[in-house]
Amino acid sequence: MASLEHTLIEARPMTGGDGPLSYAKNSPFQKGVVERGKFMIIEGIKNKLDFKIFDTSNKFLIADFGCSAGPNTFFGVENIIEAVGIKYRAQNKDSPPLEFQVFFNDLTDNDFNTLFRTLPSYQKYFSAGVPGSFYVRLFPKSSLHIGFSSCALLWLSKIPREVLDCNSPAWNKGSIIQCNEHSEEVAKAFLGQYASDVDTFLTSRAQEIVGGGLMVIQIPGCPDGVLMSQTSTGITFNLFGSCLADLSKMGVIAKEKVDSFNLPLYFATVKELEEIIKKNGYFSIEKLEWDHAMFRAMKLDPQALCVQFRTVSEGLVKMHFGDNMVEEIFNYYVKKLEENYSAYDEASNHQIEMFILLKRKTDYN
Amino acid sequence: MASLEHTLIEARPMTGGDGPLSYAKNSPFQKGVVERGKFMIIEGIKNKLDFKIFDTSNKFLIADFGCSAGPNTFFGVENIIEAVGIKYRAQNKDSPPLEFQVFFNDLTDNDFNTLFRTLPSYQKYFSAGVPGSFYVRLFPKSSLHIGFSSCALLWLSKIPREVLDCNSPAWNKGSIIQCNEHSEEVAKAFLGQYASDVDTFLTSRAQEIVGGGLMVIQIPGCPDGVLMSQTSTGITFNLFGSCLADLSKMGVIAKEKVDSFNLPLYFATVKELEEIIKKNGYFSIEKLEWDHAMFRAMKLDPQALCVQFRTVSEGLVKMHFGDNMVEEIFNYYVKKLEENYSAYDEASNHQIEMFILLKRKTDYN
Repeated sequence: MASLEHTLIEARPMTGGDGPLSYAKNSPFQKGVVERGKFMIIEGIKNKLDFKIFDTSNKFLIADFGCSAGPNTFFGVENIIEAVGIKYRAQNKDSPPLEFQVFFNDLTDNDFNTLFRTLPSYQKYFSAGVPGSFYVRLFPKSSLHIGFSSCALLWLSKIPREVLDCNSPAWNKGSIIQCNEHSEEVAKAFLGQYASDVDTFLTSRAQEIVGGGLMVIQIPGCPDGVLMSQTSTGITFNLFGSCLADLSKMGVIAKEKVDSFNLPLYFATVKELEEIIKKNGYFSIEKLEWDHAMFRAMKLDPQALCVQFRTVSEGLVKMHFGDNMVEEIFNYYVKKLEENYSAYDEASNHQIEMFILLKRKTDYN
Repeated sequence: MASLEHTLIEARPMTGGDGPLSYAKNSPFQKGVVERGKFMIIEGIKNKLDFKIFDTSNKFLIADFGCSAGPNTFFGVENIIEAVGIKYRAQNKDSPPLEFQVFFNDLTDNDFNTLFRTLPSYQKYFSAGVPGSFYVRLFPKSSLHIGFSSCALLWLSKIPREVLDCNSPAWNKGSIIQCNEHSEEVAKAFLGQYASDVDTFLTSRAQEIVGGGLMVIQIPGCPDGVLMSQTSTGITFNLFGSCLADLSKMGVIAKEKVDSFNLPLYFATVKELEEIIKKNGYFSIEKLEWDHAMFRAMKLDPQALCVQFRTVSEGLVKMHFGDNMVEEIFNYYVKKLEENYSAYDEASNHQIEMFILLKRKTDYN
């Protein structure tokens, strides 16, 4: 078993609990992704899952990689359970019903206590929490029938070193995300890290998922030719970056602190992701679809945008700038969002949501 | 799947975190039990585990029922893993090594966050947390190879109703545990609840553990003919009861509150437990040993006794008497323990530690 790497990401869970600033209460975007994915999951399982390939022994094991503290994680796995159940009953009329076991995985510092307390009381499955980065092995070999990951496989295991190195051509000066217009070297560094991380993810899952088993991935990304910084999320991130730059100029935060802060996030294009999956080789691509209807439908006001960004970034901000700076930074950030709210009109069509359905090959070890 | 019963026990986890009053820092007794059990676990697995009976597919699944927030739970499962590994390597020289997955189970309100954060960094197994009362099904059918439970199967799922009913002959007036000398009806009510709970536990585990798989149980109990109130733990409990009675007389706590408080605990005799297991029928008894060396070796001072009792009872005390009473009650309790410390000399040989090794029958469904 690979030893757990204590990379940056280990210290960055979503904000726990179920208070007003918690991830559990502020993830409408992620919820929307899950809801929109429902039809695709049901269709995908109907057409691509073949019980004959593997022995279920009447138990069916599902894992959600990067589940956070719910409740979206429950909707996602319930869609899968519903689809698997319908298909199984149709094909196995005389067998006893499947028993489902669902593993909720996230970083060790994730708030599993809240996750467990909010498990639906009508649960139709046995539950377990699995702590640890999904960039290492988390399960014994051939343990799972379906893996699922929603809005999680955009987090890098770490910031590429050269991006933070002022002597490197890939130094990401003055920005907190990969901005292609700044430098091709920066873009290369982020893509390199992302490709390596996704490859590690797929290689780990390939050991854990039985031959013929499925992996469902939902992530935001960029259409080919569009820069991350042009997407609505990219704008949200860049405004946070310029808010940090302002606070540095105002003497509130040290300049070095701002220069050394980057978000460990990457929005891939469909083409990039397709190449990484094919090069990895363990899974066949059964479906890779995308659209951007989601972002047109969602109109968050500046306050809500700030809260939503805060739930996913507060851990990082705290760790980097200190507990005492958090309120000041996010208060300033709301103002920044209000002043620049019109920038979103331009961007809203650029971001995409990818739905990827993979099948573990039976002939590739 | 049985629906989760929200019985009293759902609200009574051990004290979480790893602070000075946490269970994690104050369970030397439980640790001693695990350490003493090591030899018996190793011998038991060596002599009674037969890999030929079931298909491991190179993964070996273990669950700890009632794990609390560690760290004793880690020592217990590691003893099992060591013993299984030695036996497997000796019998399967050419096979790849087993991959172990360990499920840590406790009540939903248990502090799983602390448990996960304190997982040993050298872990030789994949980990998962499973929230829920072990008096219902927690795993799909035939999911586990070995079940383990240490110092947990003495907690009742609830206080028998008649014990709290002042119109019943089984009313446990003036005591917070089952005291045989008070009334045979009280004893019958507690034993009835215990027998029903252990039967439910075994029936649930019988579905989850593969035929030929093992269940290891370690619990404190009474030698035949000895009353729970005569054991050192019984004395600890009774002193807490008389401390509540004092506080009621002093007008600090309402009398009705004291009368309606009982600890949902039962110390069985070897004979009682043997009968329950045989009547249940799903498991063969491979070993049922007991001794009382442990209590002679352990000399806790009154302060430590109080802290140890507090870690397992604070949740119950809080729920019943209110947050604001906790400090006053436990401060008074320390004094009570100091004044009555000599009572322990008499009792220390009476309590026993039972080690029970069960095997899931292959011919009983």
